[in-house]
Amino acid sequence: MTTKQTIYYTLTDEAPSLATCSLLPIVRAFTSAADIDIKITDISLAGRILASFPDNLNDDQKVEDGLAFLGNLTQDPDANIIKLPNISASVPQLKACIAELQSQGYDIPDFPEDPQSEADKEIQARYSKILGSAVNPVLREGNSDRRAPGAVKAYARKFPHSMGKWSQASQTHADYMRNGDFFSSEQSITMSDAGSVRIEYVDPQGNVEVKKELPLEKGEVLDSMRMSCKELRDFFEASMQDAKDTGVMWSLHVKATMMKVSHPIVFGHAVTVFYKELFEKHGELFEELGVNPNNGIGSVYDKIASLPRSKREEIEEDIHACYEHRPKLAMVDSAKGITNLHVPSDVIVDASMPAMIRNGGKMWDANGQTADTKAVMPESTYARIYQEMINFCKTNGAFDPTTMGTVPNVGLMAKKAEEYGSHDKTYECKAGTMRVVAQDGTVLMSHEVADGDIWRACQTKDEPVRDWVKLAVTRSRLSNTPAIFWLDSERAHDMELKKKVEACLQEHDTDGLDIHIMSYNEAIRFSMERQIRGLDTISVTGNVLRDYLTDLFPIMELGTSAKMLSIVPMLKGGGMYETGAGGSAPKHVQQVEEENHLRWDSLGEFLALAVSLEDVGIKKDNQKAAILAKTLDAATGKLLENNKSPSRKTGELDNRGSHFYLGLYWAQEVAAQTEDEELAAHFATLAKTLADNEEKIVAELADCQGKPAELDGYYHANRETVKRVMRPSATLNAALAAIA
Amino acid sequence: MTTKQTIYYTLTDEAPSLATCSLLPIVRAFTSAADIDIKITDISLAGRILASFPDNLNDDQKVEDGLAFLGNLTQDPDANIIKLPNISASVPQLKACIAELQSQGYDIPDFPEDPQSEADKEIQARYSKILGSAVNPVLREGNSDRRAPGAVKAYARKFPHSMGKWSQASQTHADYMRNGDFFSSEQSITMSDAGSVRIEYVDPQGNVEVKKELPLEKGEVLDSMRMSCKELRDFFEASMQDAKDTGVMWSLHVKATMMKVSHPIVFGHAVTVFYKELFEKHGELFEELGVNPNNGIGSVYDKIASLPRSKREEIEEDIHACYEHRPKLAMVDSAKGITNLHVPSDVIVDASMPAMIRNGGKMWDANGQTADTKAVMPESTYARIYQEMINFCKTNGAFDPTTMGTVPNVGLMAKKAEEYGSHDKTYECKAGTMRVVAQDGTVLMSHEVADGDIWRACQTKDEPVRDWVKLAVTRSRLSNTPAIFWLDSERAHDMELKKKVEACLQEHDTDGLDIHIMSYNEAIRFSMERQIRGLDTISVTGNVLRDYLTDLFPIMELGTSAKMLSIVPMLKGGGMYETGAGGSAPKHVQQVEEENHLRWDSLGEFLALAVSLEDVGIKKDNQKAAILAKTLDAATGKLLENNKSPSRKTGELDNRGSHFYLGLYWAQEVAAQTEDEELAAHFATLAKTLADNEEKIVAELADCQGKPAELDGYYHANRETVKRVMRPSATLNAALAAIA
Repeated sequence: MTTKQTIYYTLTDEAPSLATCSLLPIVRAFTSAADIDIKITDISLAGRILASFPDNLNDDQKVEDGLAFLGNLTQDPDANIIKLPNISASVPQLKACIAELQSQGYDIPDFPEDPQSEADKEIQARYSKILGSAVNPVLREGNSDRRAPGAVKAYARKFPHSMGKWSQASQTHADYMRNGDFFSSEQSITMSDAGSVRIEYVDPQGNVEVKKELPLEKGEVLDSMRMSCKELRDFFEASMQDAKDTGVMWSLHVKATMMKVSHPIVFGHAVTVFYKELFEKHGELFEELGVNPNNGIGSVYDKIASLPRSKREEIEEDIHACYEHRPKLAMVDSAKGITNLHVPSDVIVDASMPAMIRNGGKMWDANGQTADTKAVMPESTYARIYQEMINFCKTNGAFDPTTMGTVPNVGLMAKKAEEYGSHDKTYECKAGTMRVVAQDGTVLMSHEVADGDIWRACQTKDEPVRDWVKLAVTRSRLSNTPAIFWLDSERAHDMELKKKVEACLQEHDTDGLDIHIMSYNEAIRFSMERQIRGLDTISVTGNVLRDYLTDLFPIMELGTSAKMLSIVPMLKGGGMYETGAGGSAPKHVQQVEEENHLRWDSLGEFLALAVSLEDVGIKKDNQKAAILAKTLDAATGKLLENNKSPSRKTGELDNRGSHFYLGLYWAQEVAAQTEDEELAAHFATLAKTLADNEEKIVAELADCQGKPAELDGYYHANRETVKRVMRPSATLNAALAAIA
Repeated sequence: MTTKQTIYYTLTDEAPSLATCSLLPIVRAFTSAADIDIKITDISLAGRILASFPDNLNDDQKVEDGLAFLGNLTQDPDANIIKLPNISASVPQLKACIAELQSQGYDIPDFPEDPQSEADKEIQARYSKILGSAVNPVLREGNSDRRAPGAVKAYARKFPHSMGKWSQASQTHADYMRNGDFFSSEQSITMSDAGSVRIEYVDPQGNVEVKKELPLEKGEVLDSMRMSCKELRDFFEASMQDAKDTGVMWSLHVKATMMKVSHPIVFGHAVTVFYKELFEKHGELFEELGVNPNNGIGSVYDKIASLPRSKREEIEEDIHACYEHRPKLAMVDSAKGITNLHVPSDVIVDASMPAMIRNGGKMWDANGQTADTKAVMPESTYARIYQEMINFCKTNGAFDPTTMGTVPNVGLMAKKAEEYGSHDKTYECKAGTMRVVAQDGTVLMSHEVADGDIWRACQTKDEPVRDWVKLAVTRSRLSNTPAIFWLDSERAHDMELKKKVEACLQEHDTDGLDIHIMSYNEAIRFSMERQIRGLDTISVTGNVLRDYLTDLFPIMELGTSAKMLSIVPMLKGGGMYETGAGGSAPKHVQQVEEENHLRWDSLGEFLALAVSLEDVGIKKDNQKAAILAKTLDAATGKLLENNKSPSRKTGELDNRGSHFYLGLYWAQEVAAQTEDEELAAHFATLAKTLADNEEKIVAELADCQGKPAELDGYYHANRETVKRVMRPSATLNAALAAIA
């Protein structure tokens, strides 16, 4: 351990990377006064590509592998990382980035879509590691601590977002399977010793096929569960009939992006049940054409495009005929006629359900009107909490952001903590038996499966669970808030975890703390009852509820989940501070290129930086860091109150202007504090200079707007060019230089 | 204490008194074998009248005062009383009874409706004590223990009653005040010492009027609360508007018969808000006519009947005009056009809400169709439990009588235990302050009141609370069932009780028992979640919830509350066993007089007698009584299973035939048991005789039917005549005589 502390700031992509260029000089002006270094680590898509092909680059072009560096750093107790949103690259994005780098003179290979040679296969393997959600799994080496920062909560209380009215007579409800789903079939075991288990499929003749061998740790929890294809399809049919009979819209809410094996299958069944007459009539043709209902009814439209016009029109008429016997569908885009069943990725349950609830239980129909809806989430495990909240809102009315308490989350996330998304252990089955077998042949878990059933297994390691319990106790203590472990008494997995939690709680000092274990319905009800009375309750949950609740509650409380503070206290003692959700915003970059206005809101970075500094203050006993943390939070609060967040309109205050105000308020706060007079004196000048030049700086920051800005690259823009674009105020630059 | 035990069987009125005449000879054949005496005590309306005027009667006519006798008996630890339903006489019933007695040669005075002389006033005072609910207050010298007997529950599981389907999209809901009601204003104190308090009204000028002086015991709880007239009327207006906007029916659920001061006022406000244009236009005329909206819109129709035709028609048109701007009203009688607002006594919340919930959340509209409804219960204290159950049924579907668990009740009832119906301490206020003041002038509780506000105080004594806690512990132990005290954390009264309960629980052995204190919403949810999983939960409640829940749950579980076992374990140690609810059924007597068929079901007596015998078995260590109790229950179960309950159709098995089968099955059960061979042998002959003559006896019991039966009196029928009518089977009579 050194006394000097380094904060690692990620350089990512698109809007966040532009914003960093403007913000960091301001931040450094402050942190240097507390002997804190800020180092940039490149984990941008371009950076990760370049780092993957060092042999193709000359020495000037070679870059450090930022992600690998941070991956190692997560194991360091001193790690302090501020993580900005980055691109989870799709194939088209990857290709565009490769092309850009090649055009800049980097001799990297093309992406081989259909590799044949060994060399191409090796290249594809390297690119595969860059595709998709490649950063989070490496960096999230800890559990999750998410909460609404005080300043943000205060702002929402003072300037509440809009909330739709809930009618007591609303017909909206959550609909889910009562039998045959994962919840009703879940089995779970805890390994008393380390050892391997086999996942096996036994066919009706008794032939055994080993699907996978899993090495498990001592204390590791392994679950298995089965969703019945037949019961799922019967459920869909009954649900659609009921919606038709009762006159409510029908909507489907899954998470096909995350549960990327099981949920597309579930989605596909919804499509073939809804359009059953269509698929009955044209099933063979669709098969020939390669229609995949798991990709939505959109897949039908895509694939029939090549058919002769008359045939295509016949099919289109048959599609429309289906609507006559079916309920109205919730729309993703009424204007374009895109329904809920068009593509599986349009409606994502953790975002769509809170939006619906915030909107008084209504979704959009084909005429662009809002209507009550049957919100279908086949798997009941988590769906029940939405029904509980819907009932609560019908009874008590919409939540009131001006008075409601907050529900922060402590989520089990480290070392994957699988509850879903266990893609490598999810199977669409043939009839027979799926089972988990110990090395000595003992059958540990077993499910009869029929054709089309979905079976999956999930692993949860012991160490993260212990850390999660500790984090819950710590958060409960520090925030003086009751903490509820959401562990369902009717769920096998949760009952295994409950044993661990109960044992683990014994090891901690919980004296004076209010810690409970409740089933999901009890837990959400308890939390909501407190919430409408202005009281806070920590939700301590598994990985899925972490994901769902950190959208659900923030969207009620703050109108968005992007303003949440998201901390990953690493298992090894370090800390990662994630900033605002919602991707890296390509549209924002377009606006900069066209009009030199960056609407990106760096609020998440302000918040993350404050806790990062707070951590330095505590761990290094760095009083100056502690003061900077406190004053930064105060400055952020002031910024929100004074409405100095970026405007969406070109010519008005943008990201850069917002950074200026943060610097101004922060300097004023430091200057005004009395704990450290040296520090106060140090920033008094900056505070004065910025205040005196407020009008001038704001004008300089506005004057550059309205004209196109050249960034010399998109995925791999020229840093110097970006710096010129993002720091246009000579007055501000000079003031910052003066304090350095 | 003697070893010989007496069971006191009440002789009441109408159908129950006829049934007693047939049943008792059978019962005595069994109890005499266990050295138990059955004594009849006359508490019929006629009997109570005769007992009140001994001076007017000759020695032959004089009767014992049965009610006074039983009233004294309640103080005896050995008391064992079986209490049948009796007439709660209205004035017309009283007069009819007087006339009948006079015609039989009893020289009792007429009822003076408007007494002037001192003598008449004295006569009226005596009759007043006979009017209305005069029996229960004397006999209910204990708390309440109500449950579904095993045989009844088993029958409902095997032959379930119909249940309406609940739609997930149902619009039905409970609507109640969120502010300004009794719940939101409740204050409560516990007397640390015995002493008097004064209820005072202070006018805006500071003048004090003492409304009442109350002597309170040490440990007695006194509550006070206020319902705002303005907020009530605003609530009604908003509620009606909302129902109109959302297209649901509007229905009002109060308990005007029981809360006979406050609820008619509440009802009256609903009427004048619903028909506000009518009352605005004709208010003065209505006042002249003596229209009282507290008696419903029916009062308008009554009072305008005397007006000239043209005026009457104008008003009737104005009534109809009101409906245009108002939601549809739930109907009491669609055919006759009687709405929910016609008279206040037609819709009684504790019966109407369970009926609605059992019917899938629907009530009847003007066209005789069922429809979703806004069920309005202005006072929120108890209304919230109905909303909780409605939400539960929307989420989980209708309850399933074949699998659901049971929710028995232990209710605080002794020594009145006022929570409502404290008529003598309820006031419709003028603007000012209502307060409760100690003898030393300390203001203990105080409410600002506006014109028209309703203020009330309620008393709960300490001894009954202690006994109630003890009873809950006992029931939890004996039935091995969790017990939940329903005490709401946001209710002042309940928080005073909670202190007592917690202290009191310390005094009992609760080892191994599962006893909790929960708020109403938690308690009902907890109970329902267990119930749909087939689990039982004892509800331990105050007096109002006792009343409401012993309708609500039985109607779901059994389709009726009449089949519940209702025990009053007396404070002094004795026991009273109440039989079937639902009044004394005048229509049944009519059928006997016209066709000699008695459809009255004595199931309640069978059940009550079994627990009465069980009590003898325990208290007197009377093994034979214990065996009779067990075998009687088994016989009752068999009777239900074999469908030997009375039919409604003349010519089929009636009350008498049902009694025969009870005797047959009971004798068979006693003969078959092996615990007491002497007893078995004693009843083997009877069992054989009855079985051998089954066809003959049933025929004898059927043959008498179809012709009129003369009872020689209605309120005071001739006992010998009744005996001849009710015991027409010579074969059965002979068999019973043989065993005596």
